[in-house]
Amino acid sequence: MNKVIDFINTNRDRYIHELTEYLAIPSISALPQHKGDVRKAAAWTRDELTRIGLENARIEETPGHPVVYGEWLHAEGAPTILFYGHYDVQPVDPLDLWESPPFEATVRDGEIYARGAADDKGQIFMHFKAIEAHMKQNGRLPVNMKVLLEGEEEVGSENLDAFIRAHRALLEADVVVISDSPMFERGIPSICYGLRGLAYFQIDVRGSNSDLHSGSFGGALANPAMVLAQILAQMKDRSGRVKIPGYYDDVVDLTEEEREAWKRLPFNEKQYRKELGAPKLFGESGYSTLERVWARPTFEVNGLLSGFTGEGAKTVLPAVAMAKVSMRLVPNQDPGKVAAQFEEYVKKVAPKTVDVTVTRMHGGRPWMTDYHNDYVQAASRAIEKGFGQAPVFNREGGSIPVVFTFQQELGLPSVLFGVGLPDENAHAPNEKLDLGNFHNGVIASAILYDEIGALRRQ
Amino acid sequence: MNKVIDFINTNRDRYIHELTEYLAIPSISALPQHKGDVRKAAAWTRDELTRIGLENARIEETPGHPVVYGEWLHAEGAPTILFYGHYDVQPVDPLDLWESPPFEATVRDGEIYARGAADDKGQIFMHFKAIEAHMKQNGRLPVNMKVLLEGEEEVGSENLDAFIRAHRALLEADVVVISDSPMFERGIPSICYGLRGLAYFQIDVRGSNSDLHSGSFGGALANPAMVLAQILAQMKDRSGRVKIPGYYDDVVDLTEEEREAWKRLPFNEKQYRKELGAPKLFGESGYSTLERVWARPTFEVNGLLSGFTGEGAKTVLPAVAMAKVSMRLVPNQDPGKVAAQFEEYVKKVAPKTVDVTVTRMHGGRPWMTDYHNDYVQAASRAIEKGFGQAPVFNREGGSIPVVFTFQQELGLPSVLFGVGLPDENAHAPNEKLDLGNFHNGVIASAILYDEIGALRRQ
Repeated sequence: MNKVIDFINTNRDRYIHELTEYLAIPSISALPQHKGDVRKAAAWTRDELTRIGLENARIEETPGHPVVYGEWLHAEGAPTILFYGHYDVQPVDPLDLWESPPFEATVRDGEIYARGAADDKGQIFMHFKAIEAHMKQNGRLPVNMKVLLEGEEEVGSENLDAFIRAHRALLEADVVVISDSPMFERGIPSICYGLRGLAYFQIDVRGSNSDLHSGSFGGALANPAMVLAQILAQMKDRSGRVKIPGYYDDVVDLTEEEREAWKRLPFNEKQYRKELGAPKLFGESGYSTLERVWARPTFEVNGLLSGFTGEGAKTVLPAVAMAKVSMRLVPNQDPGKVAAQFEEYVKKVAPKTVDVTVTRMHGGRPWMTDYHNDYVQAASRAIEKGFGQAPVFNREGGSIPVVFTFQQELGLPSVLFGVGLPDENAHAPNEKLDLGNFHNGVIASAILYDEIGALRRQ
Repeated sequence: MNKVIDFINTNRDRYIHELTEYLAIPSISALPQHKGDVRKAAAWTRDELTRIGLENARIEETPGHPVVYGEWLHAEGAPTILFYGHYDVQPVDPLDLWESPPFEATVRDGEIYARGAADDKGQIFMHFKAIEAHMKQNGRLPVNMKVLLEGEEEVGSENLDAFIRAHRALLEADVVVISDSPMFERGIPSICYGLRGLAYFQIDVRGSNSDLHSGSFGGALANPAMVLAQILAQMKDRSGRVKIPGYYDDVVDLTEEEREAWKRLPFNEKQYRKELGAPKLFGESGYSTLERVWARPTFEVNGLLSGFTGEGAKTVLPAVAMAKVSMRLVPNQDPGKVAAQFEEYVKKVAPKTVDVTVTRMHGGRPWMTDYHNDYVQAASRAIEKGFGQAPVFNREGGSIPVVFTFQQELGLPSVLFGVGLPDENAHAPNEKLDLGNFHNGVIASAILYDEIGALRRQ
């Protein structure tokens, strides 16, 4: 393994040049005018997979932007890694807030600034270089490798589930590896073993046929905006607990081990509050902030609209009121079951004075893996060697639906090992990646393949 | 008096021609491109005041659209009427819903259709013709008359209060007469003796510096849209009663006489509900619908805005949430006192997890006069003679701030005697005035001057 690491150390500068070339392609999947650039990035990626020694590297068409695939399957008896990532990037607006052009990668203070540096070109390129080091020095990988890179992650991975379902045999593997998330904090590498799911709804309340004059009619009939407020106020109690009956039935409790481990994390609540600009933090009582965000389900109002919202005063009694609401779900909550519970509860708390409609907008399942499993532990050892420090095991408050798809459709566990930083500006101006973390990440990835290769095929 | 009524009966057709000419001037005060038309209508009004025999008819400038004034002050010893109305009209959008052009008055089924037919050109013209009939037949009026017509009623009478305060001597009188409201129902003339006031606010709730990702942060801090809903839900109890402490302290109770009289009014609750399209009527328990709208204060949400309100689902945890709210006030509630009570209560119910700001937007005092007073009773007799039916005494849920100004600044009672109908479409397409009511109204107005003239000067 030492000569692989030596190779990585020796080629450090070259990596930056190549990554700069990759980052120069404005593969913004959300903007139609960049469709050609997305394809250019796909071609660059395919060629890179060939360059680093993978086989059968190719572009696979989808109804949207294409998928890039490559493989190396000659490690007989060893497990197979399905490496997943994406080569598309977020838009760059507002452009004037960038300190250097988003598609001209610039190194400042040991960090490389460019759109895609962290999310996700920089992190998939890290794996490209780990694969390359093995291939160049040993002519082989210690593990079977399938690389699946999509071009639509930033627009909701619309065609990925169908692609996965249509290519079950091609994507057969033992474990998924993903590097598309930040570390817990600078100097504290982490492995994410849990994600929250989502259940998103629109509530529409109608009180009358048309907007009415609040003088002529105020007092005679229910105000739909007030009824909506009353319905929403019924969703949570004063301690921050969701009041939907049955909501917590399937929630997997935090283990004592998790709570103890998270307590030891260097989380500065005061600074966190200050950065958010919140007068005071608030959440479900009996849980810490990290526990609330990572391991507890919640109920959020995402939007409100009713009546007159312009400047000044208009004395309207609105005909309708609308709210967008969503719940972040944790294992083992089921979005469909939660949706039914929610609809039932809205029906129960809504008065007969208005018409109330609940529309299901979007759902995604939560995901969690046992961080004691062999793959996560293999990753832990690899990271400890690459970064000189053992990783912490964390969960995330957000959702990555494809992780659940890999589990559901292919029966695969995932290892989420990211080297970005919490302030990486993934979807904002001045996106960046720390080059020290990148370099340690290439080494850790190379070691990860060794560690997983050494595991018996399950 | 008979010859005055004969004159009115004889001239019936001429009135329609003249009114058609008046209604043809598109004096839309809200639209700058109609500024010249508003002035044209002012000039037409001034000339008409001269034509019907008033003296000193003139246009008085204001910072906005002008006021028109005229007088006849030779009824020595008799009271003085200050007749108030407005010659400006509402915009006509949506134009395509008009069955005939809004500024080409058209008679269909005994009703004249045009913008301004009811609100308020048709009703002030009714008084012009009553004055004219007295002057033509008797060469004099039985009462002293001051006519004050503004051109900004439809844009909030912005300059009228200042004009009144600057012209106290000019406007000195004994009673104000206003015809700018509908009758209770077709066939049921009415006199309005009470109006509700208004206290209007904006509530702004801020939870963080910027919109946040509801996955990454949901659960860690208060959601301002949820907090806003909780605050609003605290404003009313389940019986429809406003919960602001002290809110009802100054409310003048309905008298038994009022409740008995209103019970006898032919109010069809079922049809009312059906026309509004409300699933069910709702209001403060212990009161009828008319009582709730005319004589009880309320709390309405006029607008709501927060976070994402477009199509689809966006997982935002909003930074801010806003509500427009207003209370309709009844005698003797004071808008300033209510505002202080409201602000205090919001402060009390708002959690420390967010910043809450309350902004006072608008306030207007409620108004009520004793319908037993001589002027109202004089109007009652006049209406009974003009319409062949005694009027009912009602209140209105809306606000006409100038009525309070006349009371406050000039010490004058008002008689609100309108001949429109509830379906007159005052601010909508196909505005109309029933010509039978108009004709009876001219006669009733002529008799009203006699009746008030016969009262001793107070």
